[in-house]
Amino acid sequence: MPDQLFSYQQLFDFTNSVFQKIGCSPEHAHTATTTLLAADLRGIDSHGIARLSGYVRLWEVKRVNATPDIKIIHETPSTAVVDGDSGLGLVVAPFAMQIAIEKAKKVGTGWVSVQNSNHFGIAGYHAMMALQYDMLGIAMTNASPLVAPTFSIDKMLGTNPICVAAPAGKEPAFVADLATTTAANGKLEILQRKNLETPTGWVQDKEGNESHDPHILKKGGALLPLGGDREHGSHKGYALGAIVDIFSALLSGANYAPWVPPFPAYVPMPAQQPGKGIGHFLGAMRIDAFRPADEFKKDMDHWIQGFRSCKTIPGEEKVLVPGDPEREYEAIRSRDGIPLLTPVVDDLQSLAEKFGLPVL
Amino acid sequence: MPDQLFSYQQLFDFTNSVFQKIGCSPEHAHTATTTLLAADLRGIDSHGIARLSGYVRLWEVKRVNATPDIKIIHETPSTAVVDGDSGLGLVVAPFAMQIAIEKAKKVGTGWVSVQNSNHFGIAGYHAMMALQYDMLGIAMTNASPLVAPTFSIDKMLGTNPICVAAPAGKEPAFVADLATTTAANGKLEILQRKNLETPTGWVQDKEGNESHDPHILKKGGALLPLGGDREHGSHKGYALGAIVDIFSALLSGANYAPWVPPFPAYVPMPAQQPGKGIGHFLGAMRIDAFRPADEFKKDMDHWIQGFRSCKTIPGEEKVLVPGDPEREYEAIRSRDGIPLLTPVVDDLQSLAEKFGLPVL
Repeated sequence: MPDQLFSYQQLFDFTNSVFQKIGCSPEHAHTATTTLLAADLRGIDSHGIARLSGYVRLWEVKRVNATPDIKIIHETPSTAVVDGDSGLGLVVAPFAMQIAIEKAKKVGTGWVSVQNSNHFGIAGYHAMMALQYDMLGIAMTNASPLVAPTFSIDKMLGTNPICVAAPAGKEPAFVADLATTTAANGKLEILQRKNLETPTGWVQDKEGNESHDPHILKKGGALLPLGGDREHGSHKGYALGAIVDIFSALLSGANYAPWVPPFPAYVPMPAQQPGKGIGHFLGAMRIDAFRPADEFKKDMDHWIQGFRSCKTIPGEEKVLVPGDPEREYEAIRSRDGIPLLTPVVDDLQSLAEKFGLPVL
Repeated sequence: MPDQLFSYQQLFDFTNSVFQKIGCSPEHAHTATTTLLAADLRGIDSHGIARLSGYVRLWEVKRVNATPDIKIIHETPSTAVVDGDSGLGLVVAPFAMQIAIEKAKKVGTGWVSVQNSNHFGIAGYHAMMALQYDMLGIAMTNASPLVAPTFSIDKMLGTNPICVAAPAGKEPAFVADLATTTAANGKLEILQRKNLETPTGWVQDKEGNESHDPHILKKGGALLPLGGDREHGSHKGYALGAIVDIFSALLSGANYAPWVPPFPAYVPMPAQQPGKGIGHFLGAMRIDAFRPADEFKKDMDHWIQGFRSCKTIPGEEKVLVPGDPEREYEAIRSRDGIPLLTPVVDDLQSLAEKFGLPVL
């Protein structure tokens, strides 16, 4: 399956058209496209245009509302709860993040918990919205249950990512964007394609035994929290995933734990859901609500340079700063184009046919 | 080395006297003692009274100021920076957390970054201060450099813990208190006493090679970030430790990365320190700044009960909720007393002699 290369603009125009075809306003389609393709640019292929047909299927089964009335349902000077009205998380989350930023402008920080949303793409996109305002950005979301807590067979949490973005001065921004599992789904897919086994601590089978099968999720298995097992700190990964769930869903009134709606439209919704849709949590902290932004950024440069100049362990070339790999992808792919696997291209051609759009 | 049992009150009176002997006001001594002994009650023996002589030695070398003028040096409605004036972190952090709580009362959330402090005991104590106000509490701190980032030989971060506490209704509170390393120092000490090897992914030697030696830190080795190595997600543990450093020190003007002052008084201070003392970050979020507290707590009960009733993997009895082990310790030790190892008791007897106090 050789990769085919497409320019960002080609993929943007196509995706934008698809979102408009399902009924999104031009403004929402533009936002959704920008958010979605940030993943492809940054090398997180599992969260980008490869999911476009998945979003369309969610719209087809009426689990995504293409014309949502996204609104604040409760607020204080530094907080808000947003109801996403079943809209695309790709649109709802930037709306909520902008509220967090506006609140931070006024009272130093802003924190928005979101209910009734859907998958929001990569956390990094939302957190990085804060950077241009000299703010730190925070983004998290819960997700459908694929992860077994320490000692559990039952899948109770999603991969529940956390992103924190912090501006620097001369150096590029610090952007830590991480699932709270040892490895996320996208990593399993890579091993599936290469016909390789998963390392210890990534997954377990449906009985809770150690597994090295990258297909194990389809056989009732589970992803493991960061750490893998108790001896290697999986109770910490589990706790972090739980924190994300509490901030995103318990604070907003979204569904939590095993009741979070699944992304694949063919998977039935859990019975007796306790909340609405999936939940996110977005935060913004104005740097100069703490200290002058130029002093902070100067220290960030110093911090980053310190890590970059660390001596390395045998066989490794350099110590990376969180955000480095994604930024390198973005530079290359903006210039040379975005590679898509043949099955993804085929999937997009089907969408083109469905909506009467020119094929890519 | 059989453990000796002491009542909480015995240890409280002794510790309180020691803090007063070094010059703390009765109020500060009371706060410092309560904070320190919270660790012993909750079973985190490495962070409790076993460190009392260490704090005294820091005072002896004038790195701890027993009569600090702790104050806000910058603030907005939802944020503050506190200067701890080289005081005990055991006193500075509760002061800062109370400011976070007062701000949350007024504008929904409060966030305080602290410079010029010292070791603050267990993060859990500070975060849990928020619970009685129907708030979520957040506490983190940086610490002296013992941790090598992914691919690094150099030790650039501390064990940099994160704690989040969230109230429930009928169920006890959720309290996740975790170092961002696979294992913290206290776990190594247990293996040292038992003459056992460390599991894979806990430590590396001074050349950056895998090690199983629990004494390796004294030989130039390093703790590893949660995950252990790149394949098992150590870049995530590293990123989390980095986030704690940024919130605690870059936002406050404290020392960061390898420049954080060491806890042992005999270890010289790093040259060319970029900031003041060590840094903490404390946060409080009022639940009803998001949704009614009783709805949140009802959902938390449901959430907790869901996790407790998970099916378990072979050989395990139950799935725990973050905070369970510490709460069980607290119940037992409040009733039966706190066990101390003989070397710790000997250390306390030396303190008694030094300050002319009755021996324990």
